[in-house]
This record gives sequence, C-alpha cells and structure tokens, in this order.
Amino acid sequence: MGGPASQTVVMKFGGTSVADADRIRNAAKRIVSAKEDGNRVVAVLSARGKTTDELISLAYEVSDQPHPREMDMMLSTGERISCALAAMVINDLGHEAESLTGSQAGIVTDTSHTKARIIDVRTERIERVLDEGKIVLVAGFQGTSASIRSDDGEYELHGNVTTLGRGGSDTTAVAIAAALGADVCEIYTDVGGVYSADPRLVPEATKLPILSFEEMLEMSASGAGVLQLRSVEYARNHGVRIHCRSSFDDGPGTFVLTEDETMERPLVTAVTHSTDDARITLTQLPDRPGVAGRVLTALAAANVNVDMIIQNEPESEGHSADMSFTVPRDDLHAARAALEPLIAELGIGEVATDPKMGKVSLVGAGMRTHPGVAAKTFSVLGDADINIEMISTSPIKISCVVHEDDVPTAVRELHRAFELGEDSIRREDPRGDDHRPRAA
Amino acid sequence: MGGPASQTVVMKFGGTSVADADRIRNAAKRIVSAKEDGNRVVAVLSARGKTTDELISLAYEVSDQPHPREMDMMLSTGERISCALAAMVINDLGHEAESLTGSQAGIVTDTSHTKARIIDVRTERIERVLDEGKIVLVAGFQGTSASIRSDDGEYELHGNVTTLGRGGSDTTAVAIAAALGADVCEIYTDVGGVYSADPRLVPEATKLPILSFEEMLEMSASGAGVLQLRSVEYARNHGVRIHCRSSFDDGPGTFVLTEDETMERPLVTAVTHSTDDARITLTQLPDRPGVAGRVLTALAAANVNVDMIIQNEPESEGHSADMSFTVPRDDLHAARAALEPLIAELGIGEVATDPKMGKVSLVGAGMRTHPGVAAKTFSVLGDADINIEMISTSPIKISCVVHEDDVPTAVRELHRAFELGEDSIRREDPRGDDHRPRAA
Repeated sequence: MGGPASQTVVMKFGGTSVADADRIRNAAKRIVSAKEDGNRVVAVLSARGKTTDELISLAYEVSDQPHPREMDMMLSTGERISCALAAMVINDLGHEAESLTGSQAGIVTDTSHTKARIIDVRTERIERVLDEGKIVLVAGFQGTSASIRSDDGEYELHGNVTTLGRGGSDTTAVAIAAALGADVCEIYTDVGGVYSADPRLVPEATKLPILSFEEMLEMSASGAGVLQLRSVEYARNHGVRIHCRSSFDDGPGTFVLTEDETMERPLVTAVTHSTDDARITLTQLPDRPGVAGRVLTALAAANVNVDMIIQNEPESEGHSADMSFTVPRDDLHAARAALEPLIAELGIGEVATDPKMGKVSLVGAGMRTHPGVAAKTFSVLGDADINIEMISTSPIKISCVVHEDDVPTAVRELHRAFELGEDSIRREDPRGDDHRPRAA
Repeated sequence: MGGPASQTVVMKFGGTSVADADRIRNAAKRIVSAKEDGNRVVAVLSARGKTTDELISLAYEVSDQPHPREMDMMLSTGERISCALAAMVINDLGHEAESLTGSQAGIVTDTSHTKARIIDVRTERIERVLDEGKIVLVAGFQGTSASIRSDDGEYELHGNVTTLGRGGSDTTAVAIAAALGADVCEIYTDVGGVYSADPRLVPEATKLPILSFEEMLEMSASGAGVLQLRSVEYARNHGVRIHCRSSFDDGPGTFVLTEDETMERPLVTAVTHSTDDARITLTQLPDRPGVAGRVLTALAAANVNVDMIIQNEPESEGHSADMSFTVPRDDLHAARAALEPLIAELGIGEVATDPKMGKVSLVGAGMRTHPGVAAKTFSVLGDADINIEMISTSPIKISCVVHEDDVPTAVRELHRAFELGEDSIRREDPRGDDHRPRAA
C-alpha cells in the first residue's frame, strides 16, 4: 500500500467499488491491507451501485415532490448498508471494524437538505475507535444538521439527517482527512486515476501522476468526473493530499497536491470536455446598468447553474448588445421559463436557444507563463474545421464551446497537438522512482 | 377513527401494511385521519414487506457469521425508509410529518445486538415535534445502545444502533405509548384483530372484541402471531391499552386491556396452536439434585428456547426418571449437539427426538374459576382419536402437545366444543354499542 508506518490514511470507495459482494470483499481487503501496513485507517464508503437511484425512484413512486428532509433520511441508508457489509467482511478477516453513520462520525452540516455543506467534523468518536486499534468505516454523503448562530459563529445541532448531494462521499472523505490531519486521502475508483483526456475518447490518454489543486479544480469544473469539485475545493482549502487510485490494482494513481509540491509543471496537463451543455442568447439586451444582474438573478432563483457568459460590446453607447451563456442541457427548460417574463420587463429582443452544445477545455498550470496556448488552440480547432462558438479563459484554462458533435474530434486533436499522449510527455515526480507514471 | 379529541395515539403499521407505494399511501391516510380527529399522533412503522429478509440475505452473502453490531446497523435502515416514504406522503397530504430513527426518537436499549431490550424512552424530541403540531413517524424495531451502571442503575449511552429482534416494532410502539402516557396503542395488521382461532384453520372463528393482557400473553406465547409476546408483557407492565385493528377498514378490532377493564370473562376465549415444535426425551435421567438444571443450562447456552418440560417421578428414590421437553423444530439440531456431551457426563440413557410435534392450547381468563375445562379438553381430543403426548397448564391456559398432523383437527374440534364460533358466544363490551363485535 506504500507509505511509512503509523500514518493516518482516509480511503474512499465509490459506488462501483462496493457494488456487489465480491467488490465489497475486495474493498475490505484493501482496507485491511492498509491497516496491516501499520496505518490508522478510516474508510468512507458510498452506496452500492445503483442503490441511491433506486431509493430516489421509490420516493417518486409515492410523491411528485419528495420532502427534502425525508429524502435525506431515506438516501442516507444506502451508505450505511455498504459500511455494515464491509465491516462484517473485515471482522471475518480477523480485524476489528466499526461502521459509523455520518452523524456518529461527527459530520456536522448546515440545514440544506439534499445539498448540505459540511460546517464541522467532530472527530472524537472516530479518534476513540481508532485509538482502540479498530478500523473505522464511515457512511459517506451524509451528516447531521446544525444551524449557525449569527452572533458568535457557533452552531446549534438539530440532529436531522442531511445529505451532501451527488458525489458527496468524496467530500466526506476529504473533510475527515482534514479534521484528522490525515497523511493522505485515497480516492479509489475503477479508472484508477486522472487522465490527460477521457480514455474512452482518446485511447492514448495517459494517467497523470501529479496535479495541482488548481488544475484539478479546473478539470473537475470543466467535465472530468473523477473527483467532485467541492471535495477538491475542500482539499485545497485544508491542504489535504489526495491520491486518486484504482480499486483493482496496487499501482499509484494520481496525486493532487499543493502547487509547491508539484514542482515544474507542463504547459498543458489535460484536455477535458462536456457534452451536455446548451446555449441561450438574449438579443438586443438594453445597455443599462443592472440588466445583466437581473437576468442572472432570475436564473439563480430558478436554480439554473450558468457556466460561461459572454456579452458583446454594444455598437455605440446606449444601444443594445447580445448576451450568451451556457447552461446544463437539463436546465434549459427551466432557464427559458425563468427568462420569458424578462422579455417584456427589460425590453429584450428574443431568447434564442441552442440545445446541442459541448465544451472542450485545456488545463495546465504552465499556461500562466506561456501565452501562446490560446492561439495554438484556436488554430488546431480551425484546422479541424471546428467552429468555436464561445471562449472563456482562466490563468490555467482555456475553454471553447463548440457544437456537441465536434467535441470528440476537438478533444482528440488538442490532445495530439499538445502532445499529451503516452510517450509524448514525461512529468517531474517528487516522490521518486516508485511512483513513475505507468501506462494508462 | 373514534375517540374524543386531544388524545395521544400511537399507531403501529407492520411490514405488510407498508409493503408498496399504495399501502404506504393507505397507512399515511390512516395516520392523517387520526391527526385530523384532533389527536397527537405518533406512528411506528416496520420495514417494507420482505426488506429485512433481503438485508439479512445480503449480509450472509458477504459473511457466514455477520457481526451483530453491523447486522443492526444494516437492518435498521429498512424501517427508516418506510418512515421517510410515509412522511413524504403525509407532507403531500398537507400535514407536517417528521420521521425519526430509533435513536432520534430516544429509544435507549441494552447492548444486546439483534435482540436488544428497551431500557428507556427519552421522549423529549418526540414531544417537541408533537408540540410543533406535527405527526411523528418512528422507525420501529431499533434503538441506540447504552450500558447500565451497576452502582446506581443509571445508564451510559454508547450510541450504537441496536435492533429488538423479530416483531420488535410492536415493542417500540408500546414502549413509546407507555412513555408518552398515550391513550391507546393501535396495532394495525391485515387480519384486523385477534381471533378465537386461526381463521385459516377455522373459518367460523370470531374476532375477539376484548382480551385481558394475561389472555393475550398466553395466546402470544402459544402460537397467536398477531402481537409479539414481549410487546404484550411491556404493555401489561406499563398499563398500555392496545387496540389490534385492520389497516384496511375502520371497524374496531381487538382491545387488549387490564383485567379490571375486561369485566366478566368467558370460560374459554380462544384456541391457539403451533406446528413447528419438536420433542426431546432424555431417558434414565439420574435422580440427583442439579441434573435437570445442568440439562437446561446446556440448552440455554446453545440459545435453545425450551417450551414445555415434563419429568416423570422416578419409580423409587435414587432411581432414574425420564424428562421430556419441546423445543422449536429449528433448534432441534442445536439442542441435540448441546445434549450429546451430557450423556456420558450425567449418565443419561439416551436422547430421543420426535421432530414432528405440534401444540394446541385453550386460553381463557374464566378457566381460573372453572376447573372442568381440562377434563372437557381431554375428552374432546380423545373423541377425535387424537393422542395427547404432553400436557401443561397455567391458571388460564391448557396446552396439549399432539402430533403435528393432528393439530388442525384438534383446533377445529376444541373451537366447536367450546362454542367459540360466530353466533355461539357474545362477550361483554365495556365500550358501548359502537364497538359491538363484528363478523370476522
């Protein structure tokens, strides 16, 4: 399992890694192996396979709008079952394990049912069980609610079960790792790491040995599904070293570290993409202060997550401009409904929509010091006859909105042009020879 | 729903009453109706249909001997799902409901995982939610563990999830009713009450309007499956009025009350039976003090529940006797294994077993003052050519062990001979005309 003895290790196994009895046994063996290496081990488990989806269906069988508090009470059971099963296996393997619910593990959240945020981790019980020499299993994705008192920032426990939203088990693991001061938070998946592009689109994509938090944040935000964005933010804010690795083999995966630890960075690290975007364009938007704010407030009130926003300069002062933005395709209907009333109110020309959009992004910490990446990106896509609909950049990312059908070609061409494939790059690795990059 | 306004009502719905979306809706409507009658309502729910069995199978897929603590963590999820689903429906019906886990509901148990006993009910949270005008839904069959300090009888919470064993939701409901001082604990089932015999065997069996706790205890102990024995004991000890009624119609079912409330009792109230017994006979048991104790201790250590015990007088002092007892058929193997070592140790002749035994019992508070019941029972069975293998009596019960195949005839003949059928008896009912017995 690597790493010297007597470290504290938090391991997180996702739904596919505990989907059936065999996989639960496999996860239990990984956990026991880490313990036998001398570590203090906390493992965070997700619900088995499709359990959460099945529970959601069950709720919609009895209610069109299931009450969020009750949804959480129900959804939280899936992870508890996984943990109990894994604890049984670990006990059979001759080690002592105790499963804890989110509440028992001291995960305190705000009161936003189905999308709660962690506000504290009270580690007393986890520490006590670890001190007894036992392995701790924690039900991911859940906590117990508290309201923050405005006067002193302290909170008052309500004791209702909350859940953290999709992918919340990553955040549970990172939060526990932060609170325990763990040496590493290992995220186990069936893909075994973070790749230079989605291997399903780009077979020669390489597994990345190291990423900075900033790169991982940009990648999670622009389509890389390995780690939940919120968990990466939490890890960055609390300095938790993440290791994304495979549930099925012992090799190293991808370390996500602070930028100091990642040393010299390549120009471009990875190409990410998404194919479930839609574009909305508001034409002849009056050029008055507050108009854009009114539009975005209406979308926020409808719970529509706006991604890229572009507004043209008006032709001359006081005249109108166009404003375009992308939203998740599933939110397109809600977005239109929220915007229609504004046509008359603000005097907008029309609300045009384009539902089949995608996005391709280049991410790399080295971009900061190399301004040529954008120009090369545009010419690569141009050479491939791909029309760029919208562009947005950050210091370490360039995103281009393109037609959904162009996404696979765009990803492959950029991956090739920036030489991200196997054998085409070598990265610095501060952890020595044991951790050389391997074939994807 | 009956009953004046502003009462506190605890309602319990079993697994078949919440087995699917339609039944959950039905249960939710019953709960809302009780609330709309002006009652403070707490409903205790079991896991849906076969959920608990499925979870147990899941455990045995990963472990031959699932760790009891983890079994409880897992099994407790079924009732939570039922409660959350019912709460969603109730919220949709325009009422406010909150589901609580056993732990949240303040059910404190000892530390005997999978068969814990309730040692306290801390009602603060239930009372608070009731005071907010909400309906409280409590996950049955579970609690949170505590150890009792021997010095002062106080307990210290451990906070592990415990379960109460099969049928434990009845006990949860009764315990909450006792702690709240509820006016009634309503146990909803698909059979709608307690009958003078199993209607599957005796079509003319009548629904009993009233039973005393003592009668119900004897009936639960001798095969009536409507109420868990432990819940009846708890109800008797705490004076909780139980009303067993139908999930599907509004009519009254069976009230279980203290003997003062049940007024004049008929001679015989019901015939109960079981068909899953086995008999073990130890021959030539040495007539020494402590021998029987040694036998029963060995069986208790093997977790074998001994029912009826009969020992012959030895022919003369110092000589050997035979000892027979019945055990659940499923325990026969374990019982033999526990007894084999005693053959040599104690000098027993042999351990003979008879696996196909059954038991038929007559229960009735009126028996106390009418000694003729036993004689009539024996002659009824004799006239039917049924051989009585063993007999045991209590002040309000006569039990006869017979061959399993004779059980149906024995039940029918006794039911007929003691005139327990429809139209053959009328009972006093202290609750007036609204609650006259109805057809079964």
